[in-house]
Amino acid sequence: SMMANHQEFPLLARVDGPADLKRLSVDELEDLCKELRTYVWQTITRVGGHLSASLGVVELTVALHYLYDTPGDRIVWDVGHQSYIHKVLTGRRDRLPTIRQLGGLSGFCKRTESPYDTFGAGHASTAISAALGMATARDLKGEQHDVVAVVGDGGMTGGLAFEGLNNAGAAGRRLVVVLNDNKMSISPNVGALSRYLTNIISSPVFNKAKAEVWQLSEHFPKTDTFRRMVRKVEESLKSLLVPGQFFEDLGFRYLGPIDGHDLREILSVVRRVKTMDGPVLLHVVTKKGKGIAQAEGDPLKYHGVKALARSNGKIEAPPPKPTYTDVFAYAACRLAREDERVVAVTAAMSEGTKLVRFGREHPDRFFDVGIAEGHAVTFSASLAVEGVRPIAAIYSTFLQRAYDQIIHDVALQKLPVLFCLDRAGLVGEDGPTHHGAFDLSYLACVPGMVVAAPKDGRELCDLMWTGISQADGPFAIRFPRDTIPDALDPDEVGRLSLRSIPIGSWEVLRPGGDLVLLAVGSMVQPALACADRLDAAGRTIGVVSCRFVKPLDESLLEQILRETSDVVTLEEGSLEGGFGASISRFAADRGHPTRILQIGLADDFVEHGKRALLLDRAGLSADQIEARIREWRVAAPRHGSDHRTAVSTPETGRAR
Amino acid sequence: SMMANHQEFPLLARVDGPADLKRLSVDELEDLCKELRTYVWQTITRVGGHLSASLGVVELTVALHYLYDTPGDRIVWDVGHQSYIHKVLTGRRDRLPTIRQLGGLSGFCKRTESPYDTFGAGHASTAISAALGMATARDLKGEQHDVVAVVGDGGMTGGLAFEGLNNAGAAGRRLVVVLNDNKMSISPNVGALSRYLTNIISSPVFNKAKAEVWQLSEHFPKTDTFRRMVRKVEESLKSLLVPGQFFEDLGFRYLGPIDGHDLREILSVVRRVKTMDGPVLLHVVTKKGKGIAQAEGDPLKYHGVKALARSNGKIEAPPPKPTYTDVFAYAACRLAREDERVVAVTAAMSEGTKLVRFGREHPDRFFDVGIAEGHAVTFSASLAVEGVRPIAAIYSTFLQRAYDQIIHDVALQKLPVLFCLDRAGLVGEDGPTHHGAFDLSYLACVPGMVVAAPKDGRELCDLMWTGISQADGPFAIRFPRDTIPDALDPDEVGRLSLRSIPIGSWEVLRPGGDLVLLAVGSMVQPALACADRLDAAGRTIGVVSCRFVKPLDESLLEQILRETSDVVTLEEGSLEGGFGASISRFAADRGHPTRILQIGLADDFVEHGKRALLLDRAGLSADQIEARIREWRVAAPRHGSDHRTAVSTPETGRAR
Repeated sequence: SMMANHQEFPLLARVDGPADLKRLSVDELEDLCKELRTYVWQTITRVGGHLSASLGVVELTVALHYLYDTPGDRIVWDVGHQSYIHKVLTGRRDRLPTIRQLGGLSGFCKRTESPYDTFGAGHASTAISAALGMATARDLKGEQHDVVAVVGDGGMTGGLAFEGLNNAGAAGRRLVVVLNDNKMSISPNVGALSRYLTNIISSPVFNKAKAEVWQLSEHFPKTDTFRRMVRKVEESLKSLLVPGQFFEDLGFRYLGPIDGHDLREILSVVRRVKTMDGPVLLHVVTKKGKGIAQAEGDPLKYHGVKALARSNGKIEAPPPKPTYTDVFAYAACRLAREDERVVAVTAAMSEGTKLVRFGREHPDRFFDVGIAEGHAVTFSASLAVEGVRPIAAIYSTFLQRAYDQIIHDVALQKLPVLFCLDRAGLVGEDGPTHHGAFDLSYLACVPGMVVAAPKDGRELCDLMWTGISQADGPFAIRFPRDTIPDALDPDEVGRLSLRSIPIGSWEVLRPGGDLVLLAVGSMVQPALACADRLDAAGRTIGVVSCRFVKPLDESLLEQILRETSDVVTLEEGSLEGGFGASISRFAADRGHPTRILQIGLADDFVEHGKRALLLDRAGLSADQIEARIREWRVAAPRHGSDHRTAVSTPETGRAR
Repeated sequence: SMMANHQEFPLLARVDGPADLKRLSVDELEDLCKELRTYVWQTITRVGGHLSASLGVVELTVALHYLYDTPGDRIVWDVGHQSYIHKVLTGRRDRLPTIRQLGGLSGFCKRTESPYDTFGAGHASTAISAALGMATARDLKGEQHDVVAVVGDGGMTGGLAFEGLNNAGAAGRRLVVVLNDNKMSISPNVGALSRYLTNIISSPVFNKAKAEVWQLSEHFPKTDTFRRMVRKVEESLKSLLVPGQFFEDLGFRYLGPIDGHDLREILSVVRRVKTMDGPVLLHVVTKKGKGIAQAEGDPLKYHGVKALARSNGKIEAPPPKPTYTDVFAYAACRLAREDERVVAVTAAMSEGTKLVRFGREHPDRFFDVGIAEGHAVTFSASLAVEGVRPIAAIYSTFLQRAYDQIIHDVALQKLPVLFCLDRAGLVGEDGPTHHGAFDLSYLACVPGMVVAAPKDGRELCDLMWTGISQADGPFAIRFPRDTIPDALDPDEVGRLSLRSIPIGSWEVLRPGGDLVLLAVGSMVQPALACADRLDAAGRTIGVVSCRFVKPLDESLLEQILRETSDVVTLEEGSLEGGFGASISRFAADRGHPTRILQIGLADDFVEHGKRALLLDRAGLSADQIEARIREWRVAAPRHGSDHRTAVSTPETGRAR
């Protein structure tokens, strides 16, 4: 704990909240910045977490909490990766080592964690809209506090950020947007706005230009006609003198760019900002990983780090076991080699999806559109219109950003876009903003959408091949943030003989007539384990891999419902409108009285923590599933008795 | 038909496709514009449809089809309201009178209708992303055609449009975006970008300014130092000389503003555009309703018109029967008077939602954020954080644009935002892009979301009051584009005694034990009518108004399932993950063998046409429901027999 570290962190040990900051001199604040950097670096390389982003905003965070009276003044952090320093300064210093662990601090801002976390964050680009809402509420209530949104240049590429700027600029309310410009969100940034920001920073020194212009004007004739002309010219010079004309055009007063690691400059400019009214955009240039040589040298590597076995500051090689993500990336490359129509589209997740490899192999067929999921999907739709076959690789929860585009631009036009949803199900440490709990439900109601989930790496390849070679409409494959259970070596993906799977077909992995487990994707392995334990003889409990959640394998399902008294559905997704609901609906529709136990995610948000731990707590580990099925089989009457008098078990996966 | 109108439309009668345009002189094209205007005006005031937008783009549409080789060159129309002229010029002239009617032309662009409709449209802001996809596909395939997106200034406020611009500007591909700037999308436009565009248009004449600057430079000393300075000054003058610096900053070459009703000017500038490479933005200023005095005078009134009884060009007063929309608007005003925390948020639908009234009564508590549904929801979330109680009034399908914001910003933070979803269910003539078929499914899987549907106007008021006064988290109310079945006078809403309804409670409207109809919202009236017809004695068929789809009234449902052999669920929404699925899931979960017939929208998109007609074709009219239930009751065995041997009816509402 920090208490033991008075020696190493003499200033930080005295900062229990922002009020303590205000007692420090600027020299002490500068020393505090060094301590903060060291403390966060030491802690996060030990326990794991997002690192580079927070190291980049040390001075900015100190300055904001020093000059503003938080939490009365509202600071809204976009995304939240950048909020570790903020957490340390707002009473959570000693809990930093618990970050992203079950029961510990969240890796993002979270309202229930602290009054200083004014608005929950996880997905990018929300902060300006949120800040405008707060400024509006303040004005409605006649209050006086300040509202400051801190947004990365990556978050600025999201359409939501633009909508927020466009409204805030027009509303004219007192509001500060700090653009934390580090030239990358996670990957190096893309898009015209990013190029524009680079131009601002690299253009000649503005004050010098200004001075030269004044000199020039000395030489003007002093007639009235010329005075008018000079005024006109001066106005037009704004775009040179005020480099952020883009933001001025959107109604913001632009200040910057300023050096985000020069504490005194930040303090001076923020003091000026506080004297201004209306919407202000402060452009702060920072460096991800600043102050730590290793992290500055490779900010991508240190974007998020896993806990280290030894805290020597070096990040260990990832475990050798391949993940679904690895297999996906190799398979995408393979498909692009097989079929020249195939391209890949990602929304600022080149690294996360591992499509970096695809970009290297097929640079002209790889499209990282920035944080812009809606655009990614409509862009994919029109590629498909023209006969190109896009793989749209977007995480399960991020795809929520493109829901209308899926329905309106892809499905309604029956276009063959292959959606690959990584991070479907529980993602672990990123927590509720990132758990892909809803995709089965929100995709299954889209007409014509195929929804598939592989049970292993090999099947992921086959499903992707099926999507490219067989589908004549939208085709979605969801897979978890996990290692593959099979022994597939990703390097072999290029040489596999790919199998096309009949769309809507399931696979009987274990025949059995008394009880059948219908398992989706990541639930197939636990289902097999349970079946083995529950039925060592292997005669009565069947397991079916329901690799298509839509369409259902209706003939197999009909047969199962006809022949089996008890069915258990297993899915790593919300039970509301998910796979179990679909099976229940089918059974009710056909008049089957089969008893159906639905196991999946309850109707609630799941906290952060290790994936295996969360799965167990959610009742989705093999142990929990086994216990649940045993309990259900004992508690409820066998098929054939009068169900209406049965007392069903109270915990049936429904949380209301 | 046009054939009879050679006299009135001598030029138009000769234009069966764009090729015929190219045989006309520019003088003839100008005459053709007049004929087009008259033809569209006469036809649409007779048969109904969107009018003002298309009248505004007559010259632009003629110019584009005259100079580009469509459909080889791609024109992508944003939204599609503006596409009537395009339809007339591309072989659909004689079918214009069928527009928006069942089996007739769509009111929007639609790929299955014509090869000239390159990308389906309905919701705004998609065209730039779509055009970039087409330009990308063209370049990948080594083809040469042009791609032109036509976007309104309203559509430009959508985040998706910005994402498209940001990517297109950076990609640098040959691509034209025509900004059709008519100062309003449907309502007068909002936001900083809109103000910026106005500034461009209203600023001094640019060529004059340019000339003055050149004059000025004559007076500069001719030394080297000064040459450098002059160059610098000249560069900086760009923002004066090139008014669209905002778009230039995003990587576009900006041209304009030009008069969108001066055909010769448009032709001249588009010819110049065709010589340019890379992304070009052409700013065309048009007037909605142009050329027709009545429509120019009141473009809002003529945005969409109903068919007239007499074709005298005057639009009749709407029928006196009040709609759910009327009641909603009055109730919102009432709630704002009762509770000063209440505000209203809409996304460019002040007229459609009838919140114009709210804006007049409470101008400081009314927020039209433009076409920016994502922002509307995150903005509402943060208002709720600060104790304000927002009513977010967004149509059912438009809310799909804000799905992630609902989950990530509202529900995860358990914030009391009252979502009011107008146009839930089948909307009629606007067709598949606008049918609110999915909201029950996509909202029901969101943890903590209350989903309600009123059976009449009175209950809409009570549910809104319940949402404001009782809910401590998100609360959604969906209602159809229809008249209310009860006799409520909207003017009385201000004086009603409002009732708070226990959240999750249903209402038994007609007791009965043999068969119970569980009906949601708009299905309650048809259910009552069916029950009367099926059971004149009124003893055996029950009807329950399931005003809450989530949470379910579990105790009442449990009792019904226990006591009733047959249950029919009725919902005007997709059966996939909808209300019937939820009931089936509950029954399966509790082990009830009750037979359940699920009636709702099949898993497919529904075409356009009159709402009553579409409901009947979808099996949701009282007649169709009655027939369906009779068939089901006859075909399947009574409760108590062995269901597993029952032959269920083949049509059970599932379309795969």
